[in-house]
Amino acid sequence: MLFFTQCFGAVLDLIHLRFQHYKAKRVFSAAGQLVCVVNPTHSLKYAPTLCAAVQTSTEQGILPPCHHHDAVHDPQLVPCMCPLFSCPWEGHLEVVVSHLRQTHHINILQGAEIVFLATDMHLPAPTDWIIMHSCLGHQFLLVLRKQEKYEGHPQFFATMMLIGTPTQADNFTYRLELNRNQRRLKWEATPRSVLECVDSVISDGDCLVLNTSLAQLFSDNGSLAIGIAITTSKVHNSEAEM
Amino acid sequence: MLFFTQCFGAVLDLIHLRFQHYKAKRVFSAAGQLVCVVNPTHSLKYAPTLCAAVQTSTEQGILPPCHHHDAVHDPQLVPCMCPLFSCPWEGHLEVVVSHLRQTHHINILQGAEIVFLATDMHLPAPTDWIIMHSCLGHQFLLVLRKQEKYEGHPQFFATMMLIGTPTQADNFTYRLELNRNQRRLKWEATPRSVLECVDSVISDGDCLVLNTSLAQLFSDNGSLAIGIAITTSKVHNSEAEM
Repeated sequence: MLFFTQCFGAVLDLIHLRFQHYKAKRVFSAAGQLVCVVNPTHSLKYAPTLCAAVQTSTEQGILPPCHHHDAVHDPQLVPCMCPLFSCPWEGHLEVVVSHLRQTHHINILQGAEIVFLATDMHLPAPTDWIIMHSCLGHQFLLVLRKQEKYEGHPQFFATMMLIGTPTQADNFTYRLELNRNQRRLKWEATPRSVLECVDSVISDGDCLVLNTSLAQLFSDNGSLAIGIAITTSKVHNSEAEM
Repeated sequence: MLFFTQCFGAVLDLIHLRFQHYKAKRVFSAAGQLVCVVNPTHSLKYAPTLCAAVQTSTEQGILPPCHHHDAVHDPQLVPCMCPLFSCPWEGHLEVVVSHLRQTHHINILQGAEIVFLATDMHLPAPTDWIIMHSCLGHQFLLVLRKQEKYEGHPQFFATMMLIGTPTQADNFTYRLELNRNQRRLKWEATPRSVLECVDSVISDGDCLVLNTSLAQLFSDNGSLAIGIAITTSKVHNSEAEM
């Protein structure tokens, strides 16, 4: 009996997933993009991690902006930058992707343009939605975080980081796009390197920021679809065109 | 002597204005757009105005969303919708533009694409930057407001309203674009009608919202350049393309 109940639950989950997938496809179908449903994980970022330790001392003005390599002896070694877990792992940049996949079960998607469909946007802060994106010969980490910078006023922060060095990151531009209810919001920027803390990017506010009311306007039944595109950097800034 | 001091002050002001104009032109020169320097006005929106009165009762759940026409007897009569002043004027929609120009000295600009250069972004909230924009046979009101929705945390809200009816407003799409430091933020939406309160648009958060750190990233020496474009509505929403 228990077996049948579980099977029925699994089938219901599959139908729900399929339905969400269909909805996102409907919204972004014109581009024929790959849609990835991303479930939330309650953030444990306030647990003591290497990164959090560096961040704290940064806030006290002891260290320059939070870089993982400040905290390790070998600058080639990178502590686990997954913001979800208090993970003691550290390793070389080259094996970060396999660590994130194997240990933290973060999905990886292929393609220049994908749709990130974050479910259950109503969950209380802090919550993270994370995925890896393989594109143009590199791997990127997309982090959507719900966080209360000001108590009682949760906001959503979305950013893309390159699993590579800051110099490599400068060669790319990422775009996040929300499109719903005759409204469109686009954010374009150079990705940061994962050698910089995702926490510092978010505390600087140098990313796509949505307050709760905007997030609701762009959400469909509790899910937020974010179109993602990565390109090699062109001179997209008219300042540089001068 | 006083005369010379004043003249010197006026010349300095002109040089400053010219310099700001040049800077904005440099940023947006590629498009050959018209640049308008907009000076701030300390908002008096908390003074008792017709609109504020309606808003308050709306918040108490007595009335539907704040529409000026709820507050007047003749639906053709529009109270002054300039959010800066506690102005007792009311008149027909057709004479609103001349009232705003003559009584409140709000500039009007021509052209499909213009650049709104808001100066002195550091001034404390509440502060407004306002201009009228004449385009495609209609007049629009652009409002940039610095406001503390949450005490101690000022945010910037930018929206465009049609000086016309909601039905007329549905025929247009406006775009606000910030572009600086290899970052780009675009907001596209249907303008609201000035028959709706600008206060309610901002309190709903249904507009371009910038927190202080993002505003600083996009500002140049205390001035924020916003590229504005208005088009007649096309089906820019991929949902509608289905």
